[in-house]
Parts: sequence; structure tokens; C-alpha cells
Amino acid sequence: MNNNQELHIAVNQNIMEMEYAVRGPIPKRAAELIKQGMTTIPCNIGNPQAFGQKPISYYRQVLSLVEDPSKIARERKLNTILKHNIDALSGLNNTDFISDHVLNLSESFLVKTEIGLGAYSESNGPLFIREAIARFIDKRDEVDTSHGVSANPDNIFITNGASEGARRIIDLLIADKNDGIMIPIPQYPLYSATIKRSGGVQVNYYPDEDDGWSLNRSILEEALDFAIKDGVNVKGVVVINPGNPTGGILDEETIREVIDFAKKNSLVIIADEVYQENVYGAEFVSFAKVLGDEKVPLFSLHSISKGFIGECGHRGGYLEIRNPPKVLGNDVSFIDVILKQASVSLCSNTVGQLLVYLMVNSPEEGSAPYRQFVEEKQSILNDLYDKATMIREGLNQMDAVECFGRTGAMYLFPRLNKLPEGSTDFDYCMNLLEKTGLCTVNGSGFGQKEGTHHLRIAFLPSKGLLDRVLPEWIMFHNEYVNK
Amino acid sequence: MNNNQELHIAVNQNIMEMEYAVRGPIPKRAAELIKQGMTTIPCNIGNPQAFGQKPISYYRQVLSLVEDPSKIARERKLNTILKHNIDALSGLNNTDFISDHVLNLSESFLVKTEIGLGAYSESNGPLFIREAIARFIDKRDEVDTSHGVSANPDNIFITNGASEGARRIIDLLIADKNDGIMIPIPQYPLYSATIKRSGGVQVNYYPDEDDGWSLNRSILEEALDFAIKDGVNVKGVVVINPGNPTGGILDEETIREVIDFAKKNSLVIIADEVYQENVYGAEFVSFAKVLGDEKVPLFSLHSISKGFIGECGHRGGYLEIRNPPKVLGNDVSFIDVILKQASVSLCSNTVGQLLVYLMVNSPEEGSAPYRQFVEEKQSILNDLYDKATMIREGLNQMDAVECFGRTGAMYLFPRLNKLPEGSTDFDYCMNLLEKTGLCTVNGSGFGQKEGTHHLRIAFLPSKGLLDRVLPEWIMFHNEYVNK
Repeated sequence: MNNNQELHIAVNQNIMEMEYAVRGPIPKRAAELIKQGMTTIPCNIGNPQAFGQKPISYYRQVLSLVEDPSKIARERKLNTILKHNIDALSGLNNTDFISDHVLNLSESFLVKTEIGLGAYSESNGPLFIREAIARFIDKRDEVDTSHGVSANPDNIFITNGASEGARRIIDLLIADKNDGIMIPIPQYPLYSATIKRSGGVQVNYYPDEDDGWSLNRSILEEALDFAIKDGVNVKGVVVINPGNPTGGILDEETIREVIDFAKKNSLVIIADEVYQENVYGAEFVSFAKVLGDEKVPLFSLHSISKGFIGECGHRGGYLEIRNPPKVLGNDVSFIDVILKQASVSLCSNTVGQLLVYLMVNSPEEGSAPYRQFVEEKQSILNDLYDKATMIREGLNQMDAVECFGRTGAMYLFPRLNKLPEGSTDFDYCMNLLEKTGLCTVNGSGFGQKEGTHHLRIAFLPSKGLLDRVLPEWIMFHNEYVNK
Repeated sequence: MNNNQELHIAVNQNIMEMEYAVRGPIPKRAAELIKQGMTTIPCNIGNPQAFGQKPISYYRQVLSLVEDPSKIARERKLNTILKHNIDALSGLNNTDFISDHVLNLSESFLVKTEIGLGAYSESNGPLFIREAIARFIDKRDEVDTSHGVSANPDNIFITNGASEGARRIIDLLIADKNDGIMIPIPQYPLYSATIKRSGGVQVNYYPDEDDGWSLNRSILEEALDFAIKDGVNVKGVVVINPGNPTGGILDEETIREVIDFAKKNSLVIIADEVYQENVYGAEFVSFAKVLGDEKVPLFSLHSISKGFIGECGHRGGYLEIRNPPKVLGNDVSFIDVILKQASVSLCSNTVGQLLVYLMVNSPEEGSAPYRQFVEEKQSILNDLYDKATMIREGLNQMDAVECFGRTGAMYLFPRLNKLPEGSTDFDYCMNLLEKTGLCTVNGSGFGQKEGTHHLRIAFLPSKGLLDRVLPEWIMFHNEYVNK
């Protein structure tokens, strides 16, 4: 080896071929433009706090206390001083004080962890949090003693964001290069990247865009038949509901069709339900609820990064499993194998775990933090809807753009029916970035029907920012597509 | 598919074959015993805060403020009230107030992140933290304008603990089932598990236990020759310094031999240096420092989980790369590929990132938090050494037990020279657990020379706890091995 030469090494080709457009060439170009002094608007990714969305106050009050438990006693002392000698603290506002509710909750959290936030937890997360998640799921799905099937805390894994859970299942399912996983097109590229990384086959199915991204059994059967003819051994089907990037929302009947389809074909279902709070003009129905006592394996994902919470940086999520399969050839449950996978990473980060705990334990009506919590939550969710509506109105003023489906998740996925001869949605998004600073992701980054073009935009910028950039985008668009 | 039957599914055999003893059958048995009401002592894992080791106060003060930034202004108001009307706050102690130093640091951290802790950061971590890491490395390695090679922030990746960095490199290097990675025996099972998971070949080399776990070039050459004869294509060599599980500490000369060996054989070096602060009776020398301007690819790992910090649950670490190789067959740098790997997970958790920032930014002499910081740090490090010494003294009272090498990392790895006919160190550890509650890990979980038996114990329990359990262990031992 020559001392002045770089070593050239053969590497895992699956990693080389893996693509992840959400942080791909367009965001990379945006990073270059930022270095050159340009202001960009990062709509390539669902990262609400990057646009100034405030965290829920109550969550952060608890986090702050649990990270420095000596503060709990001090806050109690301050509250006592306030009670007896209010003048002494006249520089402070009411909001500068922490309610007993929050103090007690923080204290009880620390007692329950036994070892605080600084120690490795159990690899699947502390039992009391998994129990709280199970109660949350049962409440959400209206399970009671006479109706429905309860979630099992032993079948729940707390993870660093939802992505980690998805990766573990797909890694495990792909046993062979002919093994395939069905994914919707368009899809969140975590799925295509993970299937590629695991060396399996991506099997596409195509929700009906013109019918609001609806899905039905014949769409699934058709895709499966096609894969089987190709020699693919299909193991599971991914469903993203609400849809990313489409925003589409599945109704109960569709979910039942997916379950029947999986049952008939001995597939597992991977239900990405991280946007379950981001639903407008429809109701979220979980796969677990519709599944009931059907014995179809279900892996469902949830996260603290989305909804009204938006705590992306804290990396918390969970994977809940129903009807865990067994490993062919022996009697080991998937639960044990996934626990082993988790144990090699020791545990997910404990702050993410705490935020999951808070997510599944909203303050009860009448409690001290309740009113502020509900106000903040509603304000965030309403604001998101207003911004989606603003962008939809902008799209209406663009030549040959259609945006189908209801409003869900944090994204719109408009179809660009007209582009300059020979150009693609990638060119469009790159030009849009260069001209306006708006960073979106081209439809091909998510997959799309041959011959169609789209882009995904996260509806997260503030209204003021949208007021400024939407006219620029409309002007860019009408000029670009007509040139 | 029968509605009452579990689905049986073929899975990735590499995951099935992967083993991770640190959270394997012995700790699993401990969990069962706990459920039955037994008190166990979890020495199977380096998890200091689980034994009541206090976090560094200064770190947690910053974390607490950064999680709830509204507190910063409030603390300033409280400090003002204290200055002008000390009686009003007479219920509070001096330690109840936060220094301006900590307030300013927290504020400046938030300004530098721009988006707080709740947003996804860049996939490799915020640039200002990577710059701080580079400065820390240069200072540690005494790099200045006339001497040494500076760390490059673009070649640093902040990760969820050090494990994640190790996994990414090994995943990338194993391109084929004949590709191998050299690891020391005994080793930390993250390495054997990850190599198995990636479908590669584990190539063992054997540091010399009786010579204090020393290493030299001929040990490495011998292992490599053996592997080559077996048809293995060796890509890299893992070195753990200070050693886990052995506690062995490598000197500069040995590190130079490893580098020469890697250079001659075109291997990359993976240097696990997470225990760099846990060194007694010797000095830590980094691979980067000895490497200098040699063009050998080096991947070095560090973590917030070890040292005097022990913030395991917060999952923070970094991977620093020197002389990044290029991918064979094209011009892509490993840096770009590892960045793509990281981007699929979006980013590491931001609290772990902040703790990495604090780790590489110790308070300077004369600053407000300095004295307390140094006292806490020294007290933790001294306490660890005392506890290691107590356990060594206990081992001396056990029949046919030898414990070689200096004291480093957080572990002792004594050799059990006498065991009952036909029994193994696994049986020993399981019996030790059942009889005394002490949860250790058998040597075979880390690998060991054929015919030898060991156990690994983390020297973390409090002195009081050791005072109680060591006599029980000694009694158990002398009875068990002589029965």
C-alpha cells in the first residue's frame, strides 16, 4: 500500500444501492446554498420544531425536573415561599411556577424508573412505560372487558423513533434474496431503503391516487400475484396510515380488507401509524382495533416525533406486536428474537422513553396542566390544518397541478401534470429550491406510477413564511412548466 | 392458515445465530429471580448509575435548562432577587441557585443549535458539536500547529452510544460471506454479534493473558495468516483499549505495532476507546495520536456512557474517522456512505448529542462549576479504583483464581483455574447468581482460549454492598470449586 494513497475497499453493495431521498440530493444542495448565505425553507422533512413549533410546555417541565431531580425539592420550596410571602418573588410571573401535579408526576416517574435517566433501562424499555402504552392503546381502541383484545406490555418495544422498530422487523423477515415486502407507492423511503439494505425485494402496490389514494383488496392481490409470478416469496405488507407522503387516510372497511388479504396469504402486517393524531376531516382507526381477535401478525409503530408533539430530536417511539409469529423450524417467538436484537443496542434513549410515557399519559381533565395542554395541542393541530389549506389554495393557482385525498400526516403530495419536455420532478424541485429556497422532495424519491410526477411538501412553515413564499412558488411554477 | 395457529416464518439466520451474553441467559435468569423477590447485584453490565453513581451535577443542570428554556430567564430573575433581598429566599440553599456560567452555557447551546432539542439535527450531528469534538481530540492528543494531525469535524459522526458507530462500520465492511474482521479474544460481544449479523467471519486474535493481556505484532500476524489460509478476506482489526472485558491497557509501542500491522496488510483499524478515562496505573494513549500522518484508515469510538460520566441511558457517543477509505470500484468516500447510513435513522438523539458536547467541553479552571466538577469526577474515579481493589482482594482469597493485567475500563476478568469436573464458567456464574444474587457474565460469553474459564464482573457496586457480598462470594467459590 502506497503511503500517499487512499485505501479502496469493497463494501456492502446493499448499502451502496440504498437511497433515502428525504435527506438526498435536494436537501444536500440546500445545505450548500445555506453555506453560500441563502435562506432555505426545509420542507423536505417533517421536522416541526425546526420551524419554531413550540414543544408542549408540560412535557418539557417534566423533562427539566427529571434531568435534575434536585430541582423538585427546590420548586416545592419556591411554591411555599410564594404562598407565604408573595411580594418577595414579585419579579416572577405565575407561569414561572411549577404545579404540584407536575412535581408529583416527575417524582413518581423517577421512583418508577428506580435508576433515573442515566442508567441503561431494560432493552425493550421499562415495564411501567410499556404498561402505560398498553393502557393507552386499549383506551384509544375502546377495548374493555366485554369488547376487543388488550395490548400486551410484553409485546411492546420502546425504540429510538419509530424507524428503529421498522428496521428490526424488516431485517428479521428478509431471510433470503427472494424474500419480499409489499409497500405502497408512493411510500416513505425508510421502507425501500431498509428492504434494500436487508437484501430483499421491494414489492410495490399502488393506491388509487385519483380516488383520494384509496386502497382495496384487488390492488393488493394484483401486486402479490405479480410478485409471485416473479418468484418472490412475499412475507409482509407495509401500510402507512395516515399516508406519508400522500396524507391519505384509510377507513375501517379498507383496513379490514388489508387484514383479510394478509390472513389469506399468510403475511404479516407492518402498520406505520405515526401520524395517528394528524387527521383532518376523517377519523383515525387503528389496525389493532379492526384486527380484534383475528390471528394475523401485526407490527404497529407510533412515535413522539409527529402528531402535535413534534419531539423529533428526542427520538422516541414504540413497536407494538399482536399475534407474534414463531420462527420456522423452531419454537422461538419473534418477541424473543426482537428482544435479542434490541439488547445488542442495550436500550433506547431514556428521554425518548419518558416522552413516550408522557405521550400515552395526557393530563386528565381537571388536572392543573390540563387546560394549557389542550390549548397548546389544539392550537398546533389547527395551525397545521390552516397551513395545509393555504398550500392547497396555492396549488390551485398553479397550472396543471392536482392534489388528491384528504389532509393527513404533515404532507401534501401534489401531482405535476405538466413539466417541460424531457424534464422530471427532480429537475422541478431542484429549480424550485434554487429560485425560491423552498426545499421539497421529488415524487420519484418516494416512488410513483410510471409517467407521473409529484413532489412532497411538509406543511410546516409558519403562515407568515407561507404568505411570502407561496406567491413566489406560484410564479416560479407557472413560468417553469410553460417554458 | 388455521385461525388458531401461530404463523411460522423463516427469518434471517444471522440474527438467530447472533449472541449477546451481556444481556444473555444469566441476566435473564436474574430477571426471573427478581420477579420472585430476590435482590440481585447487576454486575453483568457497565451501568454505573444503576448502582447509585450520581450524574455530574453540572451536566444535569445544563440539560435541565436546555429542555425547558423558559427556566433560563427565571433563574436569572431568582438570582437577582437573591442579590437584593436574600431574606425572601431564606428557605433555599446556595446550591439551589444556578451559576451565570451554567445559564450562559445553556443559552449559548440553544443559540448554536438554532432549533433546540426537539428538532432533528443534521444526520451526523450539529457542526458546532463536531467542531468541539475535534478540538477535544486535538487537545487530548497534544496536537498543535507544529505537531500532530488535527481531527476533521466532517469526519465525525455523533451516534446513539458508541455501539451504533461500530455497527455502521462493520455493516459496511462486510461485503461478502468470506469477509472477516479481527477481534481480540476475549472481546465485547457487540463485535462478535455485529459480525455475525452482517454475515461475515469473526477472526480471533489472542492477547497474552499471563503477560497482563499484552499484544504484539506476531500475535496479530499469526491470526491473520491462519484466517487467510482459511480463505477469509480480512478487512479490518478491532482493538479495545482499555480492554473490555480484560481491563488491559495498551502502551504506545503496542499501538504502533497494531498500526504497522494494519498498514502492511491494508486493513482498517476500529479502535474502541470508550474507556479512555478509566485508566489506573498507566496512561491512555489514543490510536489517533500514535497514527500521526500514517495513511491507515482509523475508526475510533468514544461514549458518554463510561469514564466518570456514566450517562448510559442518554445514549451518546461519536465515531471519528482518519484516512477514510474509498469504495472499491468508484470514487465515493466512506464518509459519504456512512452519512447516508446515518440519514436513514435521521439523527441521533439530541440529549445524547448535548452530553457529548459537555463531555468534550469540561469547565475551565477558575470557572464557577470547575471545583465541584473536578471533585465529583475525582471522587467517582477514585471510588471505582477502590472498588476494583476490594474485588481483587476478594479474588485473592479464592482457590485457584488469577486476575491478570492492570486495572482499566470497569471490569475485572479473573481466570477460574479450578472448576468441578465437567462444569463450565457458565455453570459457575449461574450458581453464583442463585446463591449470592451476584450477576456476572461467564468468560465464554466474551470468548476465551480453549480450556480456560473466566468471568467478567463490573466493579460498580457500592463499597457497602461489596463488603456484604464479597465474603459470600468467597465462601461460595471455595465450596463450589472443591466439591
